[in-house]
Amino acid sequence: MVQNKSAVFLKYPTEYPVAGEHIEIQSKELTVALKDNDVLLRNLYFSLDPYMRGRMRDAKSYVPGFQVGEAMSGYGISEVFDSKNAAFPVGAIVSGVTGWQEYSVIPGATGLRVLPGARDSPIPLSAHLGILGVPGLTAYASLKIIGQPKAGETIFVSAAAGAVGQIVGQMAKKLGLRVVGSAGSDDKVDYLINELKFDAAFNYKKNGTILENLKRAAPEGIDIYYENVGGETLEAALEVMKDHGRVIACGMISQYNTQQPYGIRNLHHVVSKRITIRGFIAIDFVGEREEFAKEVGTWLVKKEIVYREDVADGIEASPEAFVGMLKGKNFGKQLVKIADL
Amino acid sequence: MVQNKSAVFLKYPTEYPVAGEHIEIQSKELTVALKDNDVLLRNLYFSLDPYMRGRMRDAKSYVPGFQVGEAMSGYGISEVFDSKNAAFPVGAIVSGVTGWQEYSVIPGATGLRVLPGARDSPIPLSAHLGILGVPGLTAYASLKIIGQPKAGETIFVSAAAGAVGQIVGQMAKKLGLRVVGSAGSDDKVDYLINELKFDAAFNYKKNGTILENLKRAAPEGIDIYYENVGGETLEAALEVMKDHGRVIACGMISQYNTQQPYGIRNLHHVVSKRITIRGFIAIDFVGEREEFAKEVGTWLVKKEIVYREDVADGIEASPEAFVGMLKGKNFGKQLVKIADL
Repeated sequence: MVQNKSAVFLKYPTEYPVAGEHIEIQSKELTVALKDNDVLLRNLYFSLDPYMRGRMRDAKSYVPGFQVGEAMSGYGISEVFDSKNAAFPVGAIVSGVTGWQEYSVIPGATGLRVLPGARDSPIPLSAHLGILGVPGLTAYASLKIIGQPKAGETIFVSAAAGAVGQIVGQMAKKLGLRVVGSAGSDDKVDYLINELKFDAAFNYKKNGTILENLKRAAPEGIDIYYENVGGETLEAALEVMKDHGRVIACGMISQYNTQQPYGIRNLHHVVSKRITIRGFIAIDFVGEREEFAKEVGTWLVKKEIVYREDVADGIEASPEAFVGMLKGKNFGKQLVKIADL
Repeated sequence: MVQNKSAVFLKYPTEYPVAGEHIEIQSKELTVALKDNDVLLRNLYFSLDPYMRGRMRDAKSYVPGFQVGEAMSGYGISEVFDSKNAAFPVGAIVSGVTGWQEYSVIPGATGLRVLPGARDSPIPLSAHLGILGVPGLTAYASLKIIGQPKAGETIFVSAAAGAVGQIVGQMAKKLGLRVVGSAGSDDKVDYLINELKFDAAFNYKKNGTILENLKRAAPEGIDIYYENVGGETLEAALEVMKDHGRVIACGMISQYNTQQPYGIRNLHHVVSKRITIRGFIAIDFVGEREEFAKEVGTWLVKKEIVYREDVADGIEASPEAFVGMLKGKNFGKQLVKIADL
C-alpha cells in the first residue's frame, strides 16, 4: 500500500501565507483507476513561483484559483509511472502542470509534454522549470517584445537574482545594454556583480531609499525597467526613467501579501516622459518558444549564461519553501525536489 | 503709440495658480524692428490647455518651461500684421506658437503654418485650435494607435466634455464602440448623453465613489480607458478593466495642482490583466496629421461630429480662464479670443 503525500491548500491568506495554517502536508492512500488516455505521474520536481500567490485568492485571476482542500499545483517535471496513453509511455520524462504531491493523475494527459532525451541529457531536469522553462521564456520573450532593447541603453531589473531576473540581466548584457539590478541581500548583490556581470547592483534594504540607491546605480537614468516587485521600486523606476521608457510588468511581488498596497504617486511621468507600461503572462508569448529554446539552449550548452537554483528537499519542505520564496529568502529559481529519477 | 497687453508669468505655483499672483496682465509699448524672415502677428485666438501647468514648473518637462517675467505662450491663430518673410505675407492667417498677448514677434516665423482659405472658410478660425488642431490630432491619433479600438468594445473617457474627450467619444461611437464618459457637472453629463450620444455618462462628484459610478455605467467592464485626469479615476478604471485593456495616457489633470499626489494602489492589475498603459504627446503622431485633417475635416463639413468651445473674451480674461480650465470650470475646448479678424 503506497501513500501519496500532497501539499494541500487549506484557506485563503490575507497577508503572507503560513505553512501549516494555509498549506498542509497530508498523506492519502494511493488508489488509482486510470481511464483511457489518463496517465499517472511520479513527480520529480515542481516549481514555486510568485504568481501562485494570486491563485490563493477567492477572486478571478489570470489562472484559476486553488481549490480549498485540494493539492496546490503548478509546473513540474515527472516520470510517467502508469499510462493508458500511447503518447506518454511508462518511463517517459514529461513536463506540465502537476500537483504538489508525490504522485499525480493527469486525466487525458492534458498539457503534458515529453522531454525527449531528458533522461540522458547533460542539461539537468530542473532546468526545464527554470532557464529552459516558463521563467526563461518569460524573460526572453518579454525583454525582446515589450522591452525593445537597444545596445547602449540602460535597463534596471528588480528581483534580479530571482528566476526571471537573472536571465533578463544576462540577456540584456549580451544585447549590449548597461544592466543595473536590485536584490534583497548582499550575497545576491555580489552574485549579480561577480557571477552575472551586471554593471551595477544594490541591496534595496540598505544605504538609503530605493530611489537614492537607484540614482547612484544609474545616474544617467534608465530606458527599460524590468518590473518584478512593484511598490516603492516601481515609483523609483518611474522617477529616473528617460523619455520613451518601457516598463516590462512581469510581477509585483511586494504587493501580493499585504492588505495595505503601496500607492504609486508619480504616474504623471507616464504622460510627460511618454512611458509604456505593459503587463503580460508567459503564455502570451508561446509563439516565441521555439526560438527561445534554440537560442537559450545554445547559450546554456556553450556556458555563456549561468543560473542559480534554490532547491528544497522533499514534499514536506514545500510549504515553508513557498512562503520563503514570497519573502525573498530564495536565492535563484525556487524548486522543490520530490524524488530522484 | 500702440500698447501690447500680455499675460506675463510671474512665479512658480505649488498648487493651483492664482490670477494676479502667478500670471498678470502687463501692457508695454509696442516697438518692433523686424529682421529678415521675422513676422509680427496680430493675435486673434489662443488655446488654454492642461499641459501648460507642467510648463509652470522649475523642472524638465516635455516642453520647455515658461520663463518668469515673460509672456505665457501656446498655440494660437493670428493674422500677419507686418512681415519680412515672403512665405507669410501681411494679411495671411496663420497658426503656431504665439505669446498670450495682443501682438507677437515670431523670429524667422518659426513653426508658423499658413491656413489657406481660412479667411473665407465656413469653418470658424477657432476650430484650428480645437477639433482641427492639436486636441483633435491628439484624440484621433492616440485613440487609433494606442487604443487599437475594435467594434463592440467599451471605452471609458474621463474629462469627456473637454477638448480631447468630446472628440474621442464621438470617434469611438463612429467605430462601433460602447462609449462611457465622466465629467464634473450635470450639464456636461447631459451634453455627453444628448448631444454627443454617449451610451452612458456620470458626474464624478455625485452618487458615490468614482468606482461605484463607473461600475454602474460600465457593468460589463472596459476595454479602453482614455485617461485625462489620473488619480482616483485611473484607479477605478484599472479596477474594472478587462484582460488586455489599454490605457491611453493623455493627461492626469487631477495631479497637476497638488503637492499631495494620489497614490494608485492597484497597479497589480497591469500584470494580471495584461494591461498596456502608454503615455504620448501629440507631436509623436505628427505622421497622422494628413489623414486626421482629411477625415475629421470631412466629418465636420458633413456635421457628423459636433464640438463645444468655451471662449474667454479678451487678453485680460486669460489668467482667470486658465485657472478655471485647470479646475474644470470650462465646458468644451477653452480658448481666449483676443481680437476680431
